[in-house]
Amino acid sequence: MRIDIITVVPDILTSPFEVSILKRAIEKGLVEIHLHNLRDYVTDNYKQIDDYQFGGGAGMVMMIEPIDKCISGLKAERDYDEIIYMTPDGERFNQRMANSLSLKENIILLCGHYKGVDQRVRDHFITREISIGDYVLSGGELAAAVVCDSIIRLIPGVLGNETSALTDSFQDDLLAPPVYTRPAEYNGWKVPGILTSGNFPKIESWREEQSYLRTKKLRPDLLGED
Amino acid sequence: MRIDIITVVPDILTSPFEVSILKRAIEKGLVEIHLHNLRDYVTDNYKQIDDYQFGGGAGMVMMIEPIDKCISGLKAERDYDEIIYMTPDGERFNQRMANSLSLKENIILLCGHYKGVDQRVRDHFITREISIGDYVLSGGELAAAVVCDSIIRLIPGVLGNETSALTDSFQDDLLAPPVYTRPAEYNGWKVPGILTSGNFPKIESWREEQSYLRTKKLRPDLLGED
Repeated sequence: MRIDIITVVPDILTSPFEVSILKRAIEKGLVEIHLHNLRDYVTDNYKQIDDYQFGGGAGMVMMIEPIDKCISGLKAERDYDEIIYMTPDGERFNQRMANSLSLKENIILLCGHYKGVDQRVRDHFITREISIGDYVLSGGELAAAVVCDSIIRLIPGVLGNETSALTDSFQDDLLAPPVYTRPAEYNGWKVPGILTSGNFPKIESWREEQSYLRTKKLRPDLLGED
Repeated sequence: MRIDIITVVPDILTSPFEVSILKRAIEKGLVEIHLHNLRDYVTDNYKQIDDYQFGGGAGMVMMIEPIDKCISGLKAERDYDEIIYMTPDGERFNQRMANSLSLKENIILLCGHYKGVDQRVRDHFITREISIGDYVLSGGELAAAVVCDSIIRLIPGVLGNETSALTDSFQDDLLAPPVYTRPAEYNGWKVPGILTSGNFPKIESWREEQSYLRTKKLRPDLLGED
């Protein structure tokens, strides 16, 4: 899988891809991440990538031309499955979308900044708009990192133990059950007896029940009950 | 405002705080970010911070002791408004929560990793659990960065022009209207005439209408209509 990230502040995105799981996925050749600095696609001397809004108002808008040049250049080299604009008013990202994106070959993530991109970029170049949640960030960079992290860890071979991702929250529309590790007692707080019983079928049904109870309490909407 | 972030992979979080808006907020003294490496709170020689789950199953669990030591050490130095655990099954983060957290003085963000933390940490040390969305990440680090970004930009003085944050999506439960910048025509695609009319009261009502129409189309739930 290849992910091209278009941004005006590529430096935000260096460390997330240089450590831990994402770093190993890149080193194993399971994913390629290419950061593109929009300023490299500007022709004027001021390296201007944004300008005032038509109609007035606070906040700058990212101009269409450098974005067009960058996207068109990439599309000339290969086919893209999706050209995604990261924006708070996009489709809300969820685990199902992460699963489906993890199967794509080439995607572009365009990070908004300031007041966002000129609407004509969205109308003519973008195939999909994604929001990671109902809040505003200073730019789409961290949102792009979140999307990359969530989809890359689903690529087979990225996580050491593949069953691990499949037992995560949301994979079956249920929250994960509580987990415990050593010591069995700490500060007088004990691990539930069932987990140290060695009775694995019983442990399995306890976990299923806990998953269901936790979901019912915290996220009844996932059960279609809100 | 002071934010303490507790993590097993502090290196993920270096670049997001070293550039752009977050960097300037830190330099201006408007916010302090302190990263704590959980491995510094481990007493054994192996620097072990995680262990197998009681009851079996894939994925490691973060142990209670180093977390207890780190949190207790911080609490001995100052009062914290919230001790937040970043977890996909937490309360869903939104702009209203960002507004309210931006008014706090001291908060701790504990980043989950692997299968998460020992449940006893959640039961006894955590005051609030937050999820940035319905998807699973390799750890809470990027989620913590997202929360920091969204709240820090709301602190007065962080953004150059304060009206800018107030006209963002979600601040009034409406999505932002489309924005345009120069050139007025590109590739034959024109900016809506109203925006270049100079008639500001009309522009204002056009924007309000566009905000409403976009919200109705993309996010009727925000209008209580889904």
